[in-house]
Amino acid sequence: MSNYVGQNIPRNDGWDKATGNGMFTHDVKVPGMLYAAVLRSPHAHARIISIDTSEAEALAGVYAVATYKNTTRKFFSTSVAMVTTIPGEEPVLDQQVFPEIVRYIGDEVAAVAAKTEKIAREALKYIKVKYEILPAIYDPIEVMKEGAPQVQPNISPGNNVCGGPIEFGLGDFAQGWAEGEVFSEITVVLPRVKQAQLETHAAVATYANGYLKVICTTQTIHPTKMMLAYIFNIPESKIIVENPPYVGGGFGVRIGISGKAELIASQLAMLSHQPVKYVYTREEDFLASDTRHGGYITCRLAAKKDGTFVALDTKAILNTGAYATFGVELVGVTGACGTAGTYRIPNLHYLGYPVYTNQQTAGAFRGFGTPQGTMAVETAVDDIAKQLNMDPIELRKKNTVKTGDSWWFPFPVGSTDLNKCIDAAAQSINWKEKRGKKQVGKIRRGVGIAAGTHVSNAAPFCVDYNAIYLRIEGDGTLHVASGIPEIGAGSTTGILQIAADVIGVPMDTIHMEFGSTASSPFDIGSHATRTLYTVGHLLTLVGKELKEDILSWTADFLNNNRLYIESNPKIQCDRMSNSGWPNVEAGSLNMNEGIICGENIDIPLYTIAYEAHIRGKQFIATKCTVPPNSPPWHAHTAEVEVDMETGMIRVLKIAAAHDIGKAINPILVEGQIEGGVAMGVGYAIREEMTYVEDKGFYNSGYHKYMLPTIDMMPEIDTILLESNDPSGPFGAKGIGECGLIPTAQL
Amino acid sequence: MSNYVGQNIPRNDGWDKATGNGMFTHDVKVPGMLYAAVLRSPHAHARIISIDTSEAEALAGVYAVATYKNTTRKFFSTSVAMVTTIPGEEPVLDQQVFPEIVRYIGDEVAAVAAKTEKIAREALKYIKVKYEILPAIYDPIEVMKEGAPQVQPNISPGNNVCGGPIEFGLGDFAQGWAEGEVFSEITVVLPRVKQAQLETHAAVATYANGYLKVICTTQTIHPTKMMLAYIFNIPESKIIVENPPYVGGGFGVRIGISGKAELIASQLAMLSHQPVKYVYTREEDFLASDTRHGGYITCRLAAKKDGTFVALDTKAILNTGAYATFGVELVGVTGACGTAGTYRIPNLHYLGYPVYTNQQTAGAFRGFGTPQGTMAVETAVDDIAKQLNMDPIELRKKNTVKTGDSWWFPFPVGSTDLNKCIDAAAQSINWKEKRGKKQVGKIRRGVGIAAGTHVSNAAPFCVDYNAIYLRIEGDGTLHVASGIPEIGAGSTTGILQIAADVIGVPMDTIHMEFGSTASSPFDIGSHATRTLYTVGHLLTLVGKELKEDILSWTADFLNNNRLYIESNPKIQCDRMSNSGWPNVEAGSLNMNEGIICGENIDIPLYTIAYEAHIRGKQFIATKCTVPPNSPPWHAHTAEVEVDMETGMIRVLKIAAAHDIGKAINPILVEGQIEGGVAMGVGYAIREEMTYVEDKGFYNSGYHKYMLPTIDMMPEIDTILLESNDPSGPFGAKGIGECGLIPTAQL
Repeated sequence: MSNYVGQNIPRNDGWDKATGNGMFTHDVKVPGMLYAAVLRSPHAHARIISIDTSEAEALAGVYAVATYKNTTRKFFSTSVAMVTTIPGEEPVLDQQVFPEIVRYIGDEVAAVAAKTEKIAREALKYIKVKYEILPAIYDPIEVMKEGAPQVQPNISPGNNVCGGPIEFGLGDFAQGWAEGEVFSEITVVLPRVKQAQLETHAAVATYANGYLKVICTTQTIHPTKMMLAYIFNIPESKIIVENPPYVGGGFGVRIGISGKAELIASQLAMLSHQPVKYVYTREEDFLASDTRHGGYITCRLAAKKDGTFVALDTKAILNTGAYATFGVELVGVTGACGTAGTYRIPNLHYLGYPVYTNQQTAGAFRGFGTPQGTMAVETAVDDIAKQLNMDPIELRKKNTVKTGDSWWFPFPVGSTDLNKCIDAAAQSINWKEKRGKKQVGKIRRGVGIAAGTHVSNAAPFCVDYNAIYLRIEGDGTLHVASGIPEIGAGSTTGILQIAADVIGVPMDTIHMEFGSTASSPFDIGSHATRTLYTVGHLLTLVGKELKEDILSWTADFLNNNRLYIESNPKIQCDRMSNSGWPNVEAGSLNMNEGIICGENIDIPLYTIAYEAHIRGKQFIATKCTVPPNSPPWHAHTAEVEVDMETGMIRVLKIAAAHDIGKAINPILVEGQIEGGVAMGVGYAIREEMTYVEDKGFYNSGYHKYMLPTIDMMPEIDTILLESNDPSGPFGAKGIGECGLIPTAQL
Repeated sequence: MSNYVGQNIPRNDGWDKATGNGMFTHDVKVPGMLYAAVLRSPHAHARIISIDTSEAEALAGVYAVATYKNTTRKFFSTSVAMVTTIPGEEPVLDQQVFPEIVRYIGDEVAAVAAKTEKIAREALKYIKVKYEILPAIYDPIEVMKEGAPQVQPNISPGNNVCGGPIEFGLGDFAQGWAEGEVFSEITVVLPRVKQAQLETHAAVATYANGYLKVICTTQTIHPTKMMLAYIFNIPESKIIVENPPYVGGGFGVRIGISGKAELIASQLAMLSHQPVKYVYTREEDFLASDTRHGGYITCRLAAKKDGTFVALDTKAILNTGAYATFGVELVGVTGACGTAGTYRIPNLHYLGYPVYTNQQTAGAFRGFGTPQGTMAVETAVDDIAKQLNMDPIELRKKNTVKTGDSWWFPFPVGSTDLNKCIDAAAQSINWKEKRGKKQVGKIRRGVGIAAGTHVSNAAPFCVDYNAIYLRIEGDGTLHVASGIPEIGAGSTTGILQIAADVIGVPMDTIHMEFGSTASSPFDIGSHATRTLYTVGHLLTLVGKELKEDILSWTADFLNNNRLYIESNPKIQCDRMSNSGWPNVEAGSLNMNEGIICGENIDIPLYTIAYEAHIRGKQFIATKCTVPPNSPPWHAHTAEVEVDMETGMIRVLKIAAAHDIGKAINPILVEGQIEGGVAMGVGYAIREEMTYVEDKGFYNSGYHKYMLPTIDMMPEIDTILLESNDPSGPFGAKGIGECGLIPTAQL
């Protein structure tokens, strides 16, 4: 029964956001709150020889100055990988709140908490630091050379590869290569790009009586709580991490700690004994928090003359910057999803190096390594098509993996409508007519295609699970408590659509409590296109249990309270028959839209909930599960116009066809895809973080970072294909990251 | 295993309260918050003919003026009885936020929300009200007379008895009376007294997007949420009721709505579209919120010559004031606990009238009707002793109910050490030496005794149940979420002691999340001496389930991960034997202080919790139960000095012996008893609300209400007797209200 799933229900955060009533971390004020500012390294690699904070501390209005000398020296990772690494593997813990050796221009040297932001910034000028300059290195190829300077000698002694390399394969590459008849070898050089989310990193921390409370912009409140517990040696039970509840965009940049906002605010709160708010300036956000990984990917693809792919070898060297954060995991995904995911290739080899440089750290960003791998492989596929003079559409369709295929996941492909996506995207762009048309003149047009896949979450390669509390209130309305955030994707709306249908209650009687570790059990949070898919999956299980409890209690109530029911005008239930008061089996009852029904039975849930209440019973349920992981699939076609004189590119149209399993809320799915396309267009043709030696990255804000603007947006034709995945909630799969992945490969 | 139960653990709210860091509703500020003031009726009974708010509305800074004309007209009760009346009975719903007919001096006529408190108060002067004066009536005996003016003609047509009378009996009173050989008939006239808790009623309400959030002083967040949902027709799931988290005393006065603070703040928030804070002035708190019931109780007790009680008839007429609130339930408890509870009396009759008058409402106050009944019966018992020339100690001990006796509860007496209490209290006061000593002169001394019982909660006579969430965090620390408040009794400390012992974890690794409906499932809240007893009882059940889950998972983990465990230095577990890797049964494991142990096994819970986490498992549990209800017992002796010229009474010593089953935290139990004794001393010799016709009660604040001060406090010898009740958690029973009950009968 589906009253809500599949409908374009308006998002439940709409009112709050449209009226300005919704609270973001930037809006948060708590009594007695101080403001923080951070002194950052002007050097790409240096050892702090001395640091004198006495003048800054003496400034009126300054409450605390934090440096490596008076704060925790614990090593950690700001990425959630720190607490989501599966058994048998070890996370790379290479960061400190304030390192003694700074490793990029922007690295944290000291922080001040003061009565006002202005005083805090002023105080930074009074901190005297002496540095010993160390040799710095920037290029991923250079850092891998023998004798290159060491960025993290303790983590990767003798080289600059952080916690890697990642290597895996299928079949026998050498043998497969030998069987090939046409070959392509291509290398892509990948730029760094920035998430550029609207709300900069921010946190407000309060520390008192051994309790730490942090209101912040993280996408992963529960893992962040675990990380803070470890870093500051506080029991997890005594830490609350909260979104306030809204987060102004995520895109991966705060899976774990938001830059270092939670850490610096907490550390200053501990030193000053006052609440402390730390908001990244736009410049800090651009220059001192994770970017997407740039680097080099070389890929060799061999095919038979009929187009059958036989072997693929990929080598990726990605620049993770000064610290690992997600470097290791991401380079794995580049291989698994980006290169090994889309096509049946019996002989595969992948070798990925996440390498350290003395640059700003790269980490998670929508697509998490998959776009990089996709760019390389899809370019090689086009090259093979060209060599074979085959339509790239046909070549792709011939080689795509099919439902039931074995592949890199430890279970077969659950569902794929990828070939339908390819056809639909081709048809929308008018592929047959436009492909291969010879262009002349100044302005020339062309069409292209890219296909691909991603994940619906991180299981079983990383820790990935959800728990949830459900309860029916005394008036039959439903409370759903989950530790996910609302980073703007609308997940909290989709989840309620699923809850309403699974349990059988009107959606407007449901409240979703989210974004606080105080009110929800563990949930890994929002990342890896997972939120709706995994929480929805859990809801189908725990919601069924809750419903069964309600129906079973109702049957008992109906069977055992004849006199009460007959004399109670509030209960509409004509259960009399010739034989008296027939027994009701729970299994014969159902509930839809808050009405419990069976033969001669038609009782509102609010009546049953209140009857249960006055008998000392609340319907409550909780459950914890590891989700399945059935990937989504996608194919984008694009029509592009190039000015042959200026080199300027205009993207005229993107046809974005996605196998999303089932669109729980189609308009929200379209929104995710359109947003992804916009980011992908920027990635493909405009955006790049440009490094200037001895100065750092040039792109210190929106004015220096060329995001595409609305006038550059192509026409977008979003096509949703529903393969009804057997594992997903109501057949759904993930979608959040997918719009970007094939777009970047224009 | 008991590491914490029975220990004097410092209370976990101590730091917050000692440092001033703890937040109370009075401290709460939210952005854009307005302040409320209330116009109250100057008449004891009147109909509002016209009300003109236009001038008040025109005042600069006024955002909204609420009257009966623009607010809900729904009838309700401010007492929790509104949502805790058991099946087959109906609560008395006789209140409105702003009634058109005002029924006591102080009744709510209008309210203003304004930018400042000063403007709000000023605006009240501009509201023009015309009243038609109606006949008013004040004395409980007078109101029962034929033709008396009607206070609530719709609720009790033809008389002023609200929802009653309450009548019950055991045996055959007339026959029992006929068997009697000595007889006592006494009437006690009971004063009204006031809770006089430190924090006045207060609420901060925010209403936006269909959601209502109320931060307030209620003792019962979940029932209050239900009440607000009903009164304002909002889904329960869309209301959050929160203590901030502390409440400055309860004593029953906010079981349900705090005066009308939550209602008026909410109603003004709805009208003004701004958050509104309403704090009762001390005068409002004294003159416009529930008091204890005063009135008349006549009791006739018959005994055999050997002292055996044979019959008791009690008639109570208690003044519930203008509205019922808890009138009906309380008059029932006066009979059940106050008159029928303490002694084996085979023939009992009780008739209780809660009657309306045009006075301030009486409701719940520590002891909830039991002190009133106890005063009457204990006076009669002393009279019988005098007639028989028997030691009142011996007469009482001869007649007290014994463990296993049938009585007014629908199950036998679970445990009672009442006779031991009587002996201990007698011994402490040096009864044998001091009793009956003829006194002469101006200053004379005497000793007295009173015994009694109460309840450990309201089940099965009212709805009374608890639900709870437990979860083990990734570092093995424990999160306990319950909807109880911390009204100052220290329950949140005692609960953690029980949790620590039941589950087997160190107490300082536990966090108690309380006082918010957002983070906890239903709990009826704090009333009826119930909090520690009932939540503790639930914890013994759900804590056991959680522990079993942990041990069972641990056994599976140990059995199935030999290589992992052997290669993991973090897991200290030498499980090798000659036969290899022996299978572990979950039943062979135990956990104490966070260490899981068995043969050759000794693993910290933090290790198991993290190993579970990285395998996608959190240990979570939830449960909902109706508690058992085994009453506590108590006997107080007192030595009192009377100045025969002035009539001044000094209480020299109270020996307070209590069968509390088991003292979970003895020093907190003693604190409860000492506080109860202090209140009881005031009730007995100093406090009284004095009514002045046409003016209302005289006692508008601490300066006009004679609370006993520390220099009037007697020496208190608190004696704890532990009968180890079979139903209670670790043998405990309730205690919160009991210190007061026998004290009042000095």
